Amino acid sequence: MKFDDTIITISREYGSGGRIIGQKLAERLGIPFYDHELITLAAKETGMSEEFLKNTEERANHSLRFSLSYLGNLSYTMPLNDQVFIAQSKIIHDIADKGPCVIVGRCADYVLKDHKHCLNVFVHANLDYRMYRAIKHYDFPEQKTVEKTKEMILKIDKQRETYYNYYTDHVWGKASNYHICLDSSQLHIDGTVDVLMKFVEEFENKRED
Amino acid sequence: MKFDDTIITISREYGSGGRIIGQKLAERLGIPFYDHELITLAAKETGMSEEFLKNTEERANHSLRFSLSYLGNLSYTMPLNDQVFIAQSKIIHDIADKGPCVIVGRCADYVLKDHKHCLNVFVHANLDYRMYRAIKHYDFPEQKTVEKTKEMILKIDKQRETYYNYYTDHVWGKASNYHICLDSSQLHIDGTVDVLMKFVEEFENKRED
Repeated sequence: MKFDDTIITISREYGSGGRIIGQKLAERLGIPFYDHELITLAAKETGMSEEFLKNTEERANHSLRFSLSYLGNLSYTMPLNDQVFIAQSKIIHDIADKGPCVIVGRCADYVLKDHKHCLNVFVHANLDYRMYRAIKHYDFPEQKTVEKTKEMILKIDKQRETYYNYYTDHVWGKASNYHICLDSSQLHIDGTVDVLMKFVEEFENKRED
Repeated sequence: MKFDDTIITISREYGSGGRIIGQKLAERLGIPFYDHELITLAAKETGMSEEFLKNTEERANHSLRFSLSYLGNLSYTMPLNDQVFIAQSKIIHDIADKGPCVIVGRCADYVLKDHKHCLNVFVHANLDYRMYRAIKHYDFPEQKTVEKTKEMILKIDKQRETYYNYYTDHVWGKASNYHICLDSSQLHIDGTVDVLMKFVEEFENKRED
């Protein structure tokens, strides 16, 4: 399979396994994978601390405004948030120019909307599966009940939706924004990766026609 | 591949080829396919004429109200429309009880939401591809310009969205309502069917685990 310059972006509901699916897909394709690494790169670019960038990650202004209140400097709310987005967008463009890769989150599908070969994926799953995965695999010491886990999942999804809809003119999770959307609770992680591999193969074959 | 009782429902944007994709998928799986046939069955069930049922097909009340105005009997608007929906839903349940099949449109994903093995698909495509397909393959004598074709596509999509959102508590085209959503303008008809076949295989294998 020819695989020269296709960028695969993955957006995902919290707990759906979108990140690990992206990582496994990148491994099978033998291409780089970007997720937390992106924050580190962005931190270097802006001169902001990595911890601060993690706090602002995928939160639109009204959430950021709240999280920033402890800094006692509300006047910087808008510019700081936008600076982070612009810095991350620039890094996403730089990464995409280097060659094929998988990028998770950060509105990469929208940031790269004019890139010539971009394949946009959305991974979601039913709440039951996401709650199970969050409890089993994620380390959130403050969440000790199933109900709290559910609340956290819904809150993080809302943050992602708000962030995406704020910085793009698209709607988060609307099928027509993506080339393929998959419910990972049906095929689980490896089965979902298998279907994505099939899609990527067909996508690349089509380009060769 | 074991394929005992899975019902595949296909929702689709107008011009995306969702109907022909469903038909080809059914052929490859060797299972029945239901689309216009459903209207014929519904017509027999309700005693309404097939022509009338075609006019009301996938139009929610406010559109139906307009189309019914020539009948001069507005008082029947709500009950007639709902009668058609109820009759079609009953037929969808009867069909699903008989064994595996592919059903296109008619909110079948929602109607069968409690069915034990249902695989819900949404097919969409960019507007350019849908305009090309509509001009090339569909026979609408009154549409003689690209611009008119575009208007018709957007109007029919709006009707489908309104109909779906009216009769269900889901949102038409929202990824999380479906198990897989595909952009058919990327892989075209046969490539999309190939990816769906892969999904169905994984879906059935998972059940055997």
